Amino acid sequence: MLKLYYAPGTCALATHIALIEAEAEYELARVGFKDAEQTKPEYLRINPKGRVPALVTERGVLTETPALLVYVAQKFPAKNLAPAGDPFAFAEVQAFNSYLCATVHINHAHRMRGYRWVDAEDEHSLEAMRRKVPESVHAAFELIERDFLKGPYVMGERFTICDPYLFTLSQWLEGDGVDLAKLPRVVEFRERMRARPSVQRAIAEEMRKPAIV
Amino acid sequence: MLKLYYAPGTCALATHIALIEAEAEYELARVGFKDAEQTKPEYLRINPKGRVPALVTERGVLTETPALLVYVAQKFPAKNLAPAGDPFAFAEVQAFNSYLCATVHINHAHRMRGYRWVDAEDEHSLEAMRRKVPESVHAAFELIERDFLKGPYVMGERFTICDPYLFTLSQWLEGDGVDLAKLPRVVEFRERMRARPSVQRAIAEEMRKPAIV
Repeated sequence: MLKLYYAPGTCALATHIALIEAEAEYELARVGFKDAEQTKPEYLRINPKGRVPALVTERGVLTETPALLVYVAQKFPAKNLAPAGDPFAFAEVQAFNSYLCATVHINHAHRMRGYRWVDAEDEHSLEAMRRKVPESVHAAFELIERDFLKGPYVMGERFTICDPYLFTLSQWLEGDGVDLAKLPRVVEFRERMRARPSVQRAIAEEMRKPAIV
Repeated sequence: MLKLYYAPGTCALATHIALIEAEAEYELARVGFKDAEQTKPEYLRINPKGRVPALVTERGVLTETPALLVYVAQKFPAKNLAPAGDPFAFAEVQAFNSYLCATVHINHAHRMRGYRWVDAEDEHSLEAMRRKVPESVHAAFELIERDFLKGPYVMGERFTICDPYLFTLSQWLEGDGVDLAKLPRVVEFRERMRARPSVQRAIAEEMRKPAIV
């Protein structure tokens, strides 16, 4: 059975929702971020990057949300979560998810993980990064609002692996200090996703699970 | 015909090499970074992100290196540049390229593009970011060296779309101040790639092309 290592409030939620949408059998393993369990040898043996998510499969461990989402879509093709047999449409899905991963998530990460890119003692620079987050995250979401979110789902009429990922990152907008009034289509998308049983189930499961790693 | 918007010295080289490996017909359009042409309306109509690469196809424009590489692999399947019909192996390729995109490239970008994440006037923070780059890029490459680069190619015996991408980013190691002596397998990989006709042709083409956008 697939096993998803996650922590609540992280981008692991995207893969979790996708697993439910795919009707996959899976189990959850909660990594204790408060005790920095993701940096300890036991977890590093699973994912040497020291991050979540990690998905344990019968062939080995996979990491990186865009890869996990594609894996779920291709492993459970009946659910049609990513376009098959159409290189352009598939690349559009990958381009959107890559933007979420390498631009949206990265801009957001400068609020609480700035120590990845400057000395952890340099409070001036860490604060400078935090101050920029509302602007940089908003700019990225503005492009999504205007150009990429086709509606009602990211890729249009069809639900794809882009949707749980955008939903997950859009949950961070308030914390990042972004003015939601300027993102009405993103907000509407988020409400639509929140009403979805897979999303409700995923969030409920993540909250009630105790940390085991 | 496919048209690749690029600038020399950028990650667009990865897609360029992949196009040659795929024996695709393509043309190049060089974006003038020195004149910030990527931020001007003419180019923003092609790629509203104001970045390279962008690949113009008969169906529309695609962006984001991991997506372009997958597109090339799937559009020209005869060359077997990405595993088809094997969700796990395909996800491994995607995971590797996602790591290059969202960790390796991002760490590197803090040397010259720090203004994305702090105020452009804040010289203290920009310098703090630059100072961290040798360490953060080295740490990412150390994982590649130890855990991810199977050898002789990234995925083992078979050349895939991971190879031009890793090669491209590994070209930046000296500029990022990383000690190559600690990365012998990466260095050996880079030499193997440099000897490859596709790589030599791509670099030669990028150098001799005048900026047109």
